[in-house]
Amino acid sequence: MARRWLVVTAICTAAFSPSAAGARQSPVDIARAYREAHGAEILDEFRSLLAMPNVASDSVGINENAAYIRDALIELGVDAELLRIPGAPPIVYGELAVPGATRTLGIYVHYDGQPVDSSRWSNGPWTPTLYTRAIDDGGTQLAFPKAGERIDPEWRIYARSAGDDKAPIGALLPVLRAFREAGISPTSNIKFFFEGEEEAGSRRLRQYLEGNRARLDDIDIWLFFDGPVHQSRRPLLTFGVRGVTGIEVTVYGSMRPLHSGHYGNWAPVPGQMLAALLATMKDEDGNVLVEGFYDTVEPLGELERAVLRELPDYDEELKRELGLLRTEGGGASLAERLLLPSLTVRGLASANVGALVRNIIPATATAALGIRLVKGNDPEQMKDLVEAHIRRQGYHIVREDPDRETRLRYPKIAKVTRSGGYPAARTAMDVPIVQQVIRATRRAAGEDLVLFPALGGSLPLYLFTDVMGKPALILPIANHDDNQHAADENLRVANLWYGIDLYAALLTMPPDSGGGG
Amino acid sequence: MARRWLVVTAICTAAFSPSAAGARQSPVDIARAYREAHGAEILDEFRSLLAMPNVASDSVGINENAAYIRDALIELGVDAELLRIPGAPPIVYGELAVPGATRTLGIYVHYDGQPVDSSRWSNGPWTPTLYTRAIDDGGTQLAFPKAGERIDPEWRIYARSAGDDKAPIGALLPVLRAFREAGISPTSNIKFFFEGEEEAGSRRLRQYLEGNRARLDDIDIWLFFDGPVHQSRRPLLTFGVRGVTGIEVTVYGSMRPLHSGHYGNWAPVPGQMLAALLATMKDEDGNVLVEGFYDTVEPLGELERAVLRELPDYDEELKRELGLLRTEGGGASLAERLLLPSLTVRGLASANVGALVRNIIPATATAALGIRLVKGNDPEQMKDLVEAHIRRQGYHIVREDPDRETRLRYPKIAKVTRSGGYPAARTAMDVPIVQQVIRATRRAAGEDLVLFPALGGSLPLYLFTDVMGKPALILPIANHDDNQHAADENLRVANLWYGIDLYAALLTMPPDSGGGG
Repeated sequence: MARRWLVVTAICTAAFSPSAAGARQSPVDIARAYREAHGAEILDEFRSLLAMPNVASDSVGINENAAYIRDALIELGVDAELLRIPGAPPIVYGELAVPGATRTLGIYVHYDGQPVDSSRWSNGPWTPTLYTRAIDDGGTQLAFPKAGERIDPEWRIYARSAGDDKAPIGALLPVLRAFREAGISPTSNIKFFFEGEEEAGSRRLRQYLEGNRARLDDIDIWLFFDGPVHQSRRPLLTFGVRGVTGIEVTVYGSMRPLHSGHYGNWAPVPGQMLAALLATMKDEDGNVLVEGFYDTVEPLGELERAVLRELPDYDEELKRELGLLRTEGGGASLAERLLLPSLTVRGLASANVGALVRNIIPATATAALGIRLVKGNDPEQMKDLVEAHIRRQGYHIVREDPDRETRLRYPKIAKVTRSGGYPAARTAMDVPIVQQVIRATRRAAGEDLVLFPALGGSLPLYLFTDVMGKPALILPIANHDDNQHAADENLRVANLWYGIDLYAALLTMPPDSGGGG
Repeated sequence: MARRWLVVTAICTAAFSPSAAGARQSPVDIARAYREAHGAEILDEFRSLLAMPNVASDSVGINENAAYIRDALIELGVDAELLRIPGAPPIVYGELAVPGATRTLGIYVHYDGQPVDSSRWSNGPWTPTLYTRAIDDGGTQLAFPKAGERIDPEWRIYARSAGDDKAPIGALLPVLRAFREAGISPTSNIKFFFEGEEEAGSRRLRQYLEGNRARLDDIDIWLFFDGPVHQSRRPLLTFGVRGVTGIEVTVYGSMRPLHSGHYGNWAPVPGQMLAALLATMKDEDGNVLVEGFYDTVEPLGELERAVLRELPDYDEELKRELGLLRTEGGGASLAERLLLPSLTVRGLASANVGALVRNIIPATATAALGIRLVKGNDPEQMKDLVEAHIRRQGYHIVREDPDRETRLRYPKIAKVTRSGGYPAARTAMDVPIVQQVIRATRRAAGEDLVLFPALGGSLPLYLFTDVMGKPALILPIANHDDNQHAADENLRVANLWYGIDLYAALLTMPPDSGGGG
């Protein structure tokens, strides 16, 4: 079914190393020229990709996305197929074998997106719309451009996964097409591995990786195309990620909602109980008070400390942008704070507020708590610590809604639902192939490139570094203000253009040049 | 347009006083016999009434309800019309002038209902459905009975306002019809005054009352048909109510929701801030810690203390029913606790929990706080106290969502939205007409009748007692477990039947018999 990459011209890799670029165009130049000539088509193709609902639990939508991407890869000469585990979103897998290449790059992208609350979107989450700039910055909607029309790089495309994580697919396909049309071959074998349930916790990723170890074991380095660039809009290369897990806590009052007049001041108020419980978990400065929460954090190495010291100080600008006078951690920098585990109230619910508010004492109150992990933290143990803390506040913990008997046995009951999740991961910086990627990235990004020891966000990177045993780097392209995971997610067009430059450079990086770059 | 009540037979009131009941049926007996013969029709008429959406803000639905009720009253010989203030739900007003009557009763009911969250209802809020017993007690749905079919008094009718507060209309209409068919005349002039925005804070009630003072000033006593009976299912007569008010508090983090990985541990978390704030407002035992909250409570008189001492102790049974081991107030009785003002978290919201949860730091968190007031508390002053408390926790208070400049000026910002509300009210027990009503109520309720100094719930009773200057009593008929204000609101059929008995007795109570009953 799949076809082989058509090698029209074997390019001497030295021909487009920066020093030799002169008479001949470098592959980055060729990709850029292609993008300038075909911008409208590129946006149009991206729009089609974004128009497909892609929540992992929606198997019809997910399979439609997977088939679409597989077909697009095949069309571009990639030997692509869907890997399947029954009941799981498929992996879009593709191989691009390059004659003579001695190195294999694994490219990871995820094509599923976060669940949506459609009512909060300016347009539908799967109705891609173009704006002159960010909506909350006064952007106005405009039609997608026709072929040849000028494209402003400050435009933004709004849709679920515009940034996280279909953006890399929207940039990769044009690079492959540009190279194919120009007869340029990558300098490494490429293996594409696009996941379909990252936002649902990557539950089958390990099974997919271990079940396909034979195909994947010759990958020399995994390149993760996901996440946003630096808040200063400078390009970013990251060597690790925080892990993630979470729990949801529900506390109980009466078995049914009660009239707040007839019972108010006597019946327990779940919202009040939940507030009291949450208030014991963090101090005013955002420090987590759960016993043992910071005990397993692995200290940083010297190389990482050096990189940390060179990070641009963008905090004050970021605070202005976000409208924050005060941050957690008593003024510590964002970069420092991301090297610690976090505990975040990511959702609260108890009956209704606003127009739907009623004069009741609700029967329950629920808090969704997100936990981010750093190197050293075990997801299960961290949840155990939070549960132990809840018990210390006098709660009996249950896994299902309690029946009357249980309610009459314990004064305070909390239902705790544990989510999955995974640990943090970090790749060493001094491996030769890592240095090659850093140099290729600098070719697209220039001296603006920011090196970052570990991203605040999470990816199942540990499966690649620890389970598959390979180095793994993260090369994000999305704008930091892309409303990732929220309503009105968007991608700035300039960031899609950067993706094209970056992937052109990575796909054609010199096989090996040793030493520092 | 309206017609006069047709006085077919002038009944001697002494003829149906309990002592004289013998050969002749009392009006209560006649109403009961009518109900037994026409139960299916009564339920069917009630169902039609409940099928009309009746949220005060829905002016189309509200006007449809008002017109329906007015027409039903006219059909029964009441001189009924709609009183209007532009933009407000109308008052359904009706007069029943009885030749020779020397006393006028004002009957208050409200025909609007609490707003609904349809998704939480087993059936639609305005799709009246009949169940064998309470749904959460294992009740199963059944068809409404046909004429002549047996009706189990334990059946429940589910719909918004089934209990609060269309139940009295559902019971009044059959009484008027029974009396009309039997040729029985009430012993007092009756003035019907049915409000359409009680659940929206009765904003125009004062204007309606004062604007119609000429029609209403000859009312000798107001009878409030609203609220639930005692939790033991015993009938209830109440001499006062708590007042009500509320505020909604929103606290702010970043100007937009943030990725909980990229910013978690640095950006402030609104849900955490809100929890910390709420936790300062009440102690573990439910005592309000807001300074001055209990300072203006008027102490009880001796007569009220006596009635309090005679109240049935139903707390333990109620706790079993509600699944509560622990209550607020360290074991103090419900009746005692209702004589204090309360502060209740009636709703919480911050982004989503459950299936829609996302890995974000939400931009805001909101708590809806309900405040119940007792005699002595001023609604505005009580909200001032809560606001002062919020300021003491370091918050700058705003009335609209803050802009960037405001956010960059204050470390902690809370938007406080104050709702209206009204004070508590109480009627003296030793007035002769009050004693007459007590005796008439006993005729329907028997010795089970519970006298209660003040209801926990709220009605705008102060407008009648303080502004209009008349005694006002509350005579509830709904079951206490009617899910009033919540989803799956319902009325137990036995309670509708009690309403018919009660209204038959009240409408025909002897003009004056002096002394104790």
